[in-house]
Amino acid sequence: MIDQTLLPNEFKYIYCDDLPSTWEAIKSLRVRGAPAIGIAGALGAVLGIWNSAAKTYEAFAAELKSARPTAVNLFWALDRISRTAEENKVLLAEALEIIAEDKAMCRAIGQHGMALLNENDTILTHCNAGGLATSDYGTALAVMFSAHKAGKQIQVYADETRPLLQGARLTTWELMQAGIDVTLICDNMAAQVMKEGKIQCVIVGADRIAANGDTANKIGTYNVAILAEAHGIPFYVAAPTSTLDFALETGAEIPIEQRAAEEVTKGFGKLTAPEGVKVYSPAFDVTPAALVTAIITEKGIARAPYTENLNALRDS
Amino acid sequence: MIDQTLLPNEFKYIYCDDLPSTWEAIKSLRVRGAPAIGIAGALGAVLGIWNSAAKTYEAFAAELKSARPTAVNLFWALDRISRTAEENKVLLAEALEIIAEDKAMCRAIGQHGMALLNENDTILTHCNAGGLATSDYGTALAVMFSAHKAGKQIQVYADETRPLLQGARLTTWELMQAGIDVTLICDNMAAQVMKEGKIQCVIVGADRIAANGDTANKIGTYNVAILAEAHGIPFYVAAPTSTLDFALETGAEIPIEQRAAEEVTKGFGKLTAPEGVKVYSPAFDVTPAALVTAIITEKGIARAPYTENLNALRDS
Repeated sequence: MIDQTLLPNEFKYIYCDDLPSTWEAIKSLRVRGAPAIGIAGALGAVLGIWNSAAKTYEAFAAELKSARPTAVNLFWALDRISRTAEENKVLLAEALEIIAEDKAMCRAIGQHGMALLNENDTILTHCNAGGLATSDYGTALAVMFSAHKAGKQIQVYADETRPLLQGARLTTWELMQAGIDVTLICDNMAAQVMKEGKIQCVIVGADRIAANGDTANKIGTYNVAILAEAHGIPFYVAAPTSTLDFALETGAEIPIEQRAAEEVTKGFGKLTAPEGVKVYSPAFDVTPAALVTAIITEKGIARAPYTENLNALRDS
Repeated sequence: MIDQTLLPNEFKYIYCDDLPSTWEAIKSLRVRGAPAIGIAGALGAVLGIWNSAAKTYEAFAAELKSARPTAVNLFWALDRISRTAEENKVLLAEALEIIAEDKAMCRAIGQHGMALLNENDTILTHCNAGGLATSDYGTALAVMFSAHKAGKQIQVYADETRPLLQGARLTTWELMQAGIDVTLICDNMAAQVMKEGKIQCVIVGADRIAANGDTANKIGTYNVAILAEAHGIPFYVAAPTSTLDFALETGAEIPIEQRAAEEVTKGFGKLTAPEGVKVYSPAFDVTPAALVTAIITEKGIARAPYTENLNALRDS
């Protein structure tokens, strides 16, 4: 996998051939993005079972799940592998099938989502829901890649996304590679940019979506959703149906991962705050469904009421 | 003056004994904060006139004003010095008088503002409106210092305030020195912290306030004001009456300084975005008066309708 912690300064592949190295790669965000975590989890489970027949599947799965508690895709992929664990020989095939489906999913999200964009629209996005977060085209960025490929003129503003700067490091890099006009801003500039009339819609990814449409995504997404509402700008979530967690009635039940203080105070290699300062660093937040204009999936676009319409989409 | 660009890692005084070094210190944010800029401007003007009698006062003033276009205090202090420029010998006295008044102003803002705080309140602040931004106690932070000194139990959350991290570097440092319980967050975490019920009010400083109460302050303040409104949390602005600009009917006329791309992409000494990425970096934004619950000045507290009540305050 690409070590995303080194981007954009260095483009380097790392090789994970056992469970501990896969766990470390997920925990340290070398691989990140809900769908990509799911894929890494599936392959990690296969490697774990192959390398050490003594352990139970449940033990592997629990250990891998402990790396990142918020994104449901990791749980989904591991449970899916589990279903075929009886037939050990088809494990890898199932993991590879997850990857193939992920690629098709990205393209379908792009196709559905681009219908929401008008010529010359400027889109604000937060964090990175691009090719690096999936096996292929991304989710939120898939909409932009598809629109660009179809010849639509679009521009993008990317929030830098503190503390780990996925927007500054990864989203701008992916969009520049694709030749899409992208402008980087700090997270706290979004309201000003909206006020100046520069943004026509917001598109973000998701780590977990509850049955009622409440959406967990990178910290700061809920900020952006409130700002979009205040400026009358549509707020779209792009995610595969594997991100839907129908077991959760609302987003209140989604666990929020807390990250280490050093990511905030030493995120750039040098100390940017007083030694020993208290830090609060939730990695995700939950955007209430009421702020979500539409959810773009590989099966189509859902709008409120979400409990009803997401259910219908799943069964379609 | 303290070189604020080196805090919190290094506490160092720099000496400015002429106009160019004072201009450089203002431009490079070695001294920052609207009142402190005003004071540095006044002393810079005195130094300039003393060192070079050949130039006109207007030339000095115009050169100094070019360093930072948004904060009105710099203009105010320079115009005030100008009024006494005829009597060259009283120039320094006038500049020193501005400092003495600034100290009294800080204490008075603190006294008026602390009446708005309840026991055990937690306050969110953005950027740095503390002692470093003034000659003494600060504006927004004066309220916290006064409450703490009076024995009120308070806690503070400080936005780190990208791109230059005045919150992470300066506000946390000042509050920790004073023994006030402070927690650092990234700017994009404010909505989540509010949603969790952790914040009872927001207090920020101001760089310029129009006659109608529209408030220019550090970029991201407008974000926070929208988030506070969405969560039903009062949003207070603390500033001396010298920050009021009655010549401006609304905030739409306040010029917004644009800063260099490198402050966003290389703000921590290493590149955190792709080489050559486009960046948009407004240094300030304007919060509409409708989002401001009250303005705390040294003469008392003003509430809407601001055009009427700020006028009354000025004349009181």
